Amino acid sequence: MVRKILKRMSKMTCLATAGIFCMSLPALAADPTASEAMFTINNTWMLVSTFLVFIMHLGFATLEAGLTRAKNTVNILFKNVSILSIGLLTYAICGFNLMYPGDAWIFGKWLGFGGLGVAAPSGAEGLIAYADGAYTYWTDFIFQAMFAATAATIVSGAVAERVKLKSFLIFSVIFVGLVYPFLGSWKWGAGWLDGMGFYDFAGSTLVHSVGGWGALACAIILGPRLGKYVKGTVRAIPGHSMPLATIGVFLLWLGWFGFNGGSVLSANPEAVSYVFVTTTLAAAAGIVGAMIVSEIMQKKPDLSMVLNGSLAGLVGITAGADVVSVMSAIIIGFIAGCLVVFSVIFIDTKLHIDDPVGALSVHLVCGIWGTLAVGIFSAEHSFMTQLIGVLAYGAVAFPSAFIIFSALKATIGVRVTEKEEYQGLDISEHAMESYDGFQIFVTQ
Amino acid sequence: MVRKILKRMSKMTCLATAGIFCMSLPALAADPTASEAMFTINNTWMLVSTFLVFIMHLGFATLEAGLTRAKNTVNILFKNVSILSIGLLTYAICGFNLMYPGDAWIFGKWLGFGGLGVAAPSGAEGLIAYADGAYTYWTDFIFQAMFAATAATIVSGAVAERVKLKSFLIFSVIFVGLVYPFLGSWKWGAGWLDGMGFYDFAGSTLVHSVGGWGALACAIILGPRLGKYVKGTVRAIPGHSMPLATIGVFLLWLGWFGFNGGSVLSANPEAVSYVFVTTTLAAAAGIVGAMIVSEIMQKKPDLSMVLNGSLAGLVGITAGADVVSVMSAIIIGFIAGCLVVFSVIFIDTKLHIDDPVGALSVHLVCGIWGTLAVGIFSAEHSFMTQLIGVLAYGAVAFPSAFIIFSALKATIGVRVTEKEEYQGLDISEHAMESYDGFQIFVTQ
Amino acid sequence: MVRKILKRMSKMTCLATAGIFCMSLPALAADPTASEAMFTINNTWMLVSTFLVFIMHLGFATLEAGLTRAKNTVNILFKNVSILSIGLLTYAICGFNLMYPGDAWIFGKWLGFGGLGVAAPSGAEGLIAYADGAYTYWTDFIFQAMFAATAATIVSGAVAERVKLKSFLIFSVIFVGLVYPFLGSWKWGAGWLDGMGFYDFAGSTLVHSVGGWGALACAIILGPRLGKYVKGTVRAIPGHSMPLATIGVFLLWLGWFGFNGGSVLSANPEAVSYVFVTTTLAAAAGIVGAMIVSEIMQKKPDLSMVLNGSLAGLVGITAGADVVSVMSAIIIGFIAGCLVVFSVIFIDTKLHIDDPVGALSVHLVCGIWGTLAVGIFSAEHSFMTQLIGVLAYGAVAFPSAFIIFSALKATIGVRVTEKEEYQGLDISEHAMESYDGFQIFVTQ
Repeated sequence: MVRKILKRMSKMTCLATAGIFCMSLPALAADPTASEAMFTINNTWMLVSTFLVFIMHLGFATLEAGLTRAKNTVNILFKNVSILSIGLLTYAICGFNLMYPGDAWIFGKWLGFGGLGVAAPSGAEGLIAYADGAYTYWTDFIFQAMFAATAATIVSGAVAERVKLKSFLIFSVIFVGLVYPFLGSWKWGAGWLDGMGFYDFAGSTLVHSVGGWGALACAIILGPRLGKYVKGTVRAIPGHSMPLATIGVFLLWLGWFGFNGGSVLSANPEAVSYVFVTTTLAAAAGIVGAMIVSEIMQKKPDLSMVLNGSLAGLVGITAGADVVSVMSAIIIGFIAGCLVVFSVIFIDTKLHIDDPVGALSVHLVCGIWGTLAVGIFSAEHSFMTQLIGVLAYGAVAFPSAFIIFSALKATIGVRVTEKEEYQGLDISEHAMESYDGFQIFVTQ
Repeated sequence: MVRKILKRMSKMTCLATAGIFCMSLPALAADPTASEAMFTINNTWMLVSTFLVFIMHLGFATLEAGLTRAKNTVNILFKNVSILSIGLLTYAICGFNLMYPGDAWIFGKWLGFGGLGVAAPSGAEGLIAYADGAYTYWTDFIFQAMFAATAATIVSGAVAERVKLKSFLIFSVIFVGLVYPFLGSWKWGAGWLDGMGFYDFAGSTLVHSVGGWGALACAIILGPRLGKYVKGTVRAIPGHSMPLATIGVFLLWLGWFGFNGGSVLSANPEAVSYVFVTTTLAAAAGIVGAMIVSEIMQKKPDLSMVLNGSLAGLVGITAGADVVSVMSAIIIGFIAGCLVVFSVIFIDTKLHIDDPVGALSVHLVCGIWGTLAVGIFSAEHSFMTQLIGVLAYGAVAFPSAFIIFSALKATIGVRVTEKEEYQGLDISEHAMESYDGFQIFVTQ
Repeated sequence: MVRKILKRMSKMTCLATAGIFCMSLPALAADPTASEAMFTINNTWMLVSTFLVFIMHLGFATLEAGLTRAKNTVNILFKNVSILSIGLLTYAICGFNLMYPGDAWIFGKWLGFGGLGVAAPSGAEGLIAYADGAYTYWTDFIFQAMFAATAATIVSGAVAERVKLKSFLIFSVIFVGLVYPFLGSWKWGAGWLDGMGFYDFAGSTLVHSVGGWGALACAIILGPRLGKYVKGTVRAIPGHSMPLATIGVFLLWLGWFGFNGGSVLSANPEAVSYVFVTTTLAAAAGIVGAMIVSEIMQKKPDLSMVLNGSLAGLVGITAGADVVSVMSAIIIGFIAGCLVVFSVIFIDTKLHIDDPVGALSVHLVCGIWGTLAVGIFSAEHSFMTQLIGVLAYGAVAFPSAFIIFSALKATIGVRVTEKEEYQGLDISEHAMESYDGFQIFVTQ
């Protein structure tokens, strides 16, 4: 805002002239071109998308906190705030460049980024041009960085209420800094899967199932929470705040308008608006799907299932939001909503993998479904190629996460003690209560 | 994001040329025209407005939950998530077309929409052109659909804590699918009221009082909550979370920037910014009005009244946000804020209609006030025409809702049993607690 | 939305022609110019920034509520809602004009604004032109008004849990209506500090430290909460809801994209995206700084410190977000994050000034740090000039607040009674509970 007075002064001069618009700074021509205007709107939409993806991190934090117990809430909030911070910084230092390795020009700039002190690119060098427009180098980085941080956050939900904070943060640094960008480069970085024709519009696989594979590996290594599976019985451990969980889901849905809408990589009116429609209707259909299946299987309208149903629809449509028909989007979302209920029940009661928030069902199962659905519902894409992509990501993401987390387990340990877990991580790790003054029953 | 690599490649080619901007895809000319740029910004603003209206649904959910008892919170959240989903899908299937019946071209497209499988409109056909600009068919639908879903949500607050879930969802489908779009077509669909010169910029009547009439009908049919009016005494039933209620009001206010700002139907700088100013100052004045009247009548600064005061100001300015002066906007908002306090007290203590969140006072009373205020404060509009519009909407909306809800009452019933109501709908309808682990006193 | 039908009709005519874009209203030329398109996007970005700054008020409300006790929550929410309302109206009546006094043309318009009934400016008169673009008079006002209201809100946190509501509201009116705009005019209103070359991009000093000086004066005059400092011991008074506090921080961060991003005063792609990057990475680095220092000094990962660390980074980068390098932004944020932990502990345990939410450390200390950092990290700005600015603001803001609040203390009083404080302000001032039905232990 520092230039205000100069601007106001220049304005007065301008107003003396007959013209309506005054552009007085030498940096801009008196009359901007239509290309400059289009560039500005494209860039602005990408920045709007960036802050929408940012708010997903609050969505993840509140959803995960709401679906777990009050005694672990400070820990969950701390984890989610830290992951965002660490994810952004790690991506700046090495992730961004690793993800787009084939581009020497970017690489040079990235060294500037990594060297963190080199002058910002300016002029034509500062622009990243795409099919439908262009935006700046800085926009490219910040939008991608917000994306990257979500992959680690997905893991967070599956390991909640028992993971050791420090171990999880180290895992996140490696996952966001190396695994996610390396895998991302296969498709978005012009890698081999892109060459094969594999399609993943905004990341059903590249973000969600990659995060989901990490979540699966970590949940298996960690084992279930105390008292979850005792002598063959499965105990439900209800979340402590359904309003927080609901806030989380709405904020995630809100953020998805930027996650999918921004993945158009321009403000192209038809593409962005179409993606809004498919994304929204898939989420709505996911709710209906989960509502019906939950009513049938659980004999009650289960709020947490319906919330996960909307996320399932969103994850499901993410791979093909721009290439499937509206009808297909509704079907994809509906099936994802059905699938998530079956999956949550199956993983809990049959596989006995303890996933407090349903992250595996939402992000891994529906991420895979959404990616395969592109091969089913879009005539231009091959089911086999989509399947190869899904398998390839699983074949690397799961073992990578498994090895990293196992190494942490073998060294500094990954799980809190039984006593700490029973007491709750808020007191044992943070010496702080989430709800000071409230009477809360601590249950195992 | 799938086109990233192609784009990065094209970029490198482009950078070799002297030009700063590179538009390499054949779909777009190398040099976009100013009209294309203007179209893109108009469309982008409408999509921003769409996600702002979306977030109002979280605002409604948290406001309603906060102003009611903890034992019914899961039920309220479930209702609000479901209504959004059902509202969007219903509007896609039949509401959108019903609302704009006079437009055969849209009708054809709608069949495409309704048929849900026909290819998306493309090229010139995909555009909806308005006075100040144009946006795509998809933008038109998604913005309107978000609006439509709010009408049913308004009803939700008035029936809270005692309505049977299934009956309410069926009511919502019919209300959003038929009543709202039919009534909307009178004005926004080029109907008879539009021909008469009736004015309702963004829906004080078309959205808020229509929702309010529905709320009135349903609240009357349902009757008050147990213990609300006993032997002539009126018992206050306080809400369980004022932070949730406050979050709700702020999110609704945030959403109103899109509700009113998007109703300009373009990014026209003067119109949108002017609407921002009138909308904001009316809300601020509504708070002051409610604060003063509440201080006088209740002898205390009542937070729930002040919160409703801001919503009252927002509903009040919605009909004339673009045609009244700034001074008038402040007066309209201030009067709305005063009115809402009188109305809440009057409806509760004199009419004995139980409206847990004050939905009737905010949406119906202030919706009517705002619509009439256009006739008072804008020289271009007639008070009589505005009054005719208000009466016409009431004359159809109220009986329609009354008949639908009565039919449901006569068949599947609309109210939970006394035992269920006492126990709370969370346990009785959903077998789930909102705040597991917290010590909460269940009161009648 | 009232023009819908006209627009749909005009569209049909348009579609009959060969052209893709139809602009039928006489107000706009059939073919908009590139300048008009650029003006529209600049204006739209400023309005997006406006609603982002708006949401900071919810962030402040939830952060302050979360970090204090449940028995004062209604009072805190009431204060924050009222301040926003009063701040907006006061700024409309006199603050806006006072802040930009040198501009006679604006002054005339302002009388229109202040007179509140004069017709809106139209045509060329309605535009405010700046270096990189232009936006409307209304946009200028509403963006500035949202800023102004934040200054009083900063004070709110430091006086929480013991201030008399009425006295605080009167203080806020004077502070937002006179002190803030008068001080703002020194720099943003083309005053003497601007002439000297003092730099404050988006308000580390003009907004945050001005608010912080006010907070310091009021906290000193009020004295600590009961039981905070007893016989030389310092008692920690934990906040009642860490989820609310976390929601607050994320919403403030979200709002900062508009606070800093909008301070570019146009949608200039390079400037806005660069500001997004520096702002985000400074916040992320602030979290890391606070995490490390908190771990060392407190021997635990303290969530409230980490939350304040992100705000510290944001306040720190606000003065120079557009002129420091990315590496510098990370260093500035990191140091701010370290500083805030030292400062919170020092102010509490050494100075014995009771600041329930850490407002002094975040806004005053880091506001000063950020302003001085511009002189350190930007070669174009002088450390001495920055220091003069910092001292000049303190030399007026602190005594002004001190005098106003002292006058209130001497007349109507500024502090509630001991009994009221013990009971909690919710019951004593508002006769309402924040969490009706919950079992909460009221502690001194």
